[in-house]
Amino acid sequence: MGDYYSEERHGPHEYFELGDFELESGITLPGARIGYKTHGKLNRAKDNAILFPHMWSGTPKAMEIFIGRNRPLDPDRYFIVLPGQFANGFSSSPSNTPPPFNGGAFPNVSIGDDVRAQHRLVTEEYGIERLELVLGWSMGAEQTYEWAVRYPNMVKRALPFAGTAKTTPHDYIFVRSHEDSLKSDPAWNGGFYRDQSEVHVGLRRHAQIWSVMGLCPEFYSAEAWRGAGFTSLEDFLRRFWEGYFAPMDPNNLIWMGWKWRHGDVSRHTGGDLAAALSRITARTYVVPFSRDMFFPPADCEAEQKLIPNSEFRVVDSLWAHFAMFCMTDSDREQIDACIADLLKDEVA
Amino acid sequence: MGDYYSEERHGPHEYFELGDFELESGITLPGARIGYKTHGKLNRAKDNAILFPHMWSGTPKAMEIFIGRNRPLDPDRYFIVLPGQFANGFSSSPSNTPPPFNGGAFPNVSIGDDVRAQHRLVTEEYGIERLELVLGWSMGAEQTYEWAVRYPNMVKRALPFAGTAKTTPHDYIFVRSHEDSLKSDPAWNGGFYRDQSEVHVGLRRHAQIWSVMGLCPEFYSAEAWRGAGFTSLEDFLRRFWEGYFAPMDPNNLIWMGWKWRHGDVSRHTGGDLAAALSRITARTYVVPFSRDMFFPPADCEAEQKLIPNSEFRVVDSLWAHFAMFCMTDSDREQIDACIADLLKDEVA
Repeated sequence: MGDYYSEERHGPHEYFELGDFELESGITLPGARIGYKTHGKLNRAKDNAILFPHMWSGTPKAMEIFIGRNRPLDPDRYFIVLPGQFANGFSSSPSNTPPPFNGGAFPNVSIGDDVRAQHRLVTEEYGIERLELVLGWSMGAEQTYEWAVRYPNMVKRALPFAGTAKTTPHDYIFVRSHEDSLKSDPAWNGGFYRDQSEVHVGLRRHAQIWSVMGLCPEFYSAEAWRGAGFTSLEDFLRRFWEGYFAPMDPNNLIWMGWKWRHGDVSRHTGGDLAAALSRITARTYVVPFSRDMFFPPADCEAEQKLIPNSEFRVVDSLWAHFAMFCMTDSDREQIDACIADLLKDEVA
Repeated sequence: MGDYYSEERHGPHEYFELGDFELESGITLPGARIGYKTHGKLNRAKDNAILFPHMWSGTPKAMEIFIGRNRPLDPDRYFIVLPGQFANGFSSSPSNTPPPFNGGAFPNVSIGDDVRAQHRLVTEEYGIERLELVLGWSMGAEQTYEWAVRYPNMVKRALPFAGTAKTTPHDYIFVRSHEDSLKSDPAWNGGFYRDQSEVHVGLRRHAQIWSVMGLCPEFYSAEAWRGAGFTSLEDFLRRFWEGYFAPMDPNNLIWMGWKWRHGDVSRHTGGDLAAALSRITARTYVVPFSRDMFFPPADCEAEQKLIPNSEFRVVDSLWAHFAMFCMTDSDREQIDACIADLLKDEVA
C-alpha cells in the first residue's frame, strides 16, 4: 500500500476499539475499530459537540479544511469529532484487516454500521447525549441522514451537503461503474494484488470515469481548472484526477462504494422513505451543489420536502460535486455560510 | 463480425464508389466507398432533396423511423438520402477494409471526410445543387453543421438535433472514455481480435458507461424504462444497453468516436467558431434535448446565438440524449414538429 494510509500523510488519529463488531450483513468483524480526529474541547455540559464524518475516498483530514478560529467550526467554541468511516484505510478496511477478512475478502459494511460505530464512540468514549450538529458531504451526507433518522433525539441540527438519504438508481449504477473499472485491471486477481501500484491501470481507468461524471460540461468549457493551477486539460486529468486516486487502495474504494450505493434510510421504515425522513427532528439544511451530475439538486429537494423542520439551499459552483474541495473562495464562503447560519438557528 | 453488418439486419444499401479517397489526415484510402439509402424520387428540378446522415453507432436504417407518408419526411414529396458515415460497418470501415488498413490499422477519418464524400454523392451521382434540408442527430448534427459551414450555398435549411458544431472538452473526454473501455478488453490485441465476440468484456464495460452518461438521473428515478417494456433496472441494463452494443464491432465504434470528438467547424476559420458559424446561410433550428448529459442545451444555445438565421428549440424528454429513438409518442411528435415547421419556413 506504499505509505498512503499513514499518519505522515493524514495526520495523527485516535482509535476507538469496537471489539467484535457485528455488521448489518450478519458477519462479525473481530477487532473492529474506527480511527478519528478531534478538534477543540468537550465542555462540562457536553453540549458543544459536532460530528463531521467524511466522504467516499477520504479520511478525517479531508474535512479539516472547514475547521478554524473565526470559522463556523471554531475549535475554541466546539468540540468537533471527525470520525473515519469503515474502509477508509485507517478504520477497519480491506487494506488493514488480517485474514480471513483481508483485501478482497473484507465483509460488506454499510452506512448503518458506520453510524452505529460512531454512536458508540460519542456515547461510550465521551458520554455525549446530544450533538449540536451532524454534517457531511456526499457519503458524509448519507451518514448525516442515517444519524438523523436512526437517533433523532441525539441530532439537534443536520447539514447534508451534496448527498441523498436514499441512493438513486442513477447514482447506484454510477458507483457500480467505478467498481467495475477498478476490477478491470489485468492484475486484479479478485482483489488479492500485493500492492495497489500493481493495479494502477484500473485506478487510472477509474480516474477517467470520475473526470467525466465528477465535474460538469460548464467546468471544462470554462477551463475552470486554470484557476486551480493546471496548465491544460490533459495536465488537469493527469495531476488532479489520476494523481488523486493513484496512491489509493482499490479495495478500500470499492468497499466504501458498496456502502455508498446501498445507502437508504428507508431500511428503518420498511422501504417508506417519507416515513423515514418524517422521523427527523433536527433542524436541517439540505444543500446540494448546482451542476452536480450525480446528486442533482432536484433529487435532494425531493427529499428535503419530506423533512419537517428543513430548508433547501443550493451552493452555486462550477466545481459541481467537488465544490466541497473549496478550490475557489466563493465555494468556501457559501459552504461556511450554510454552517454558520444553521448553527445560529434557535433549536429547542 | 458475425452478421451484424449485413443487409439482412440493416436493409439494402446502395454504394457510392469514391475510388482513391484522400482523407483529411493525409492518408489515401484506396477503394473507399460509402453505403447509403434513398427514399422517394428526385424531381426534375432537383429541388426536393433532403440529406439525413446518421448518428454514431448507427447506420442509415436508424434514421428511417422518421420517414413515412403523412410524416414531415414524406417520400411522396421528398427525395431523402440517408448517407452512411465512414466506419459504420457498411461504408469503408475498420471491419470491412483490407490490409494495410484493416481493423486496428484503419486510418483516422473525420467529419469533414464524411461530408466531402456525401458532397460527391449528391453532386456527382444525382446532380443536386442545393439541398432543401440537411438534418441529423448527435454525430448527424456534427455532419449537418459541417455541411452548413463548408457548403453554405448548398444548404437551404439545417436542423442539428442534440449535437454541437464544435465538440466541447467534456464531450471529448466522455468519448475518449468509451474508447478506453473498449480497449480494456483482455483480448484487445491492438484492435486485431478475430471476431468482435472475443472482446465482449470491453463491449459490456462500454455499455455500462453509456448507461450512466447516456441517460439522466430523472430517467432512472422515474423508471421510464418500464414504458419501453423492460421489467427491472437490471433487465434494462442488460437488454437495452448491452444488447444494443453487444453485436457491434469495437473498432468501428472507436473510429466513429474519433471523428465525433474531433468535430469542429472552426477548422475552416483558423479556430474562430463565431466566424465559422456566421458563414451559415441556411435557415437553421438548433434543437437540443432537455436533460442531455453530454450535449446540454446551454452548449447548443451558445452556438445557436452565433448562427444568423437560426432559432433555438428544446425537445423535452426523460430519454435525454436518446429522445431520438422515439421510445415515446411525445418524443416522436416533438421531433416531427421541428422538422415540419422548418420545412414550412419560407427560405429565399
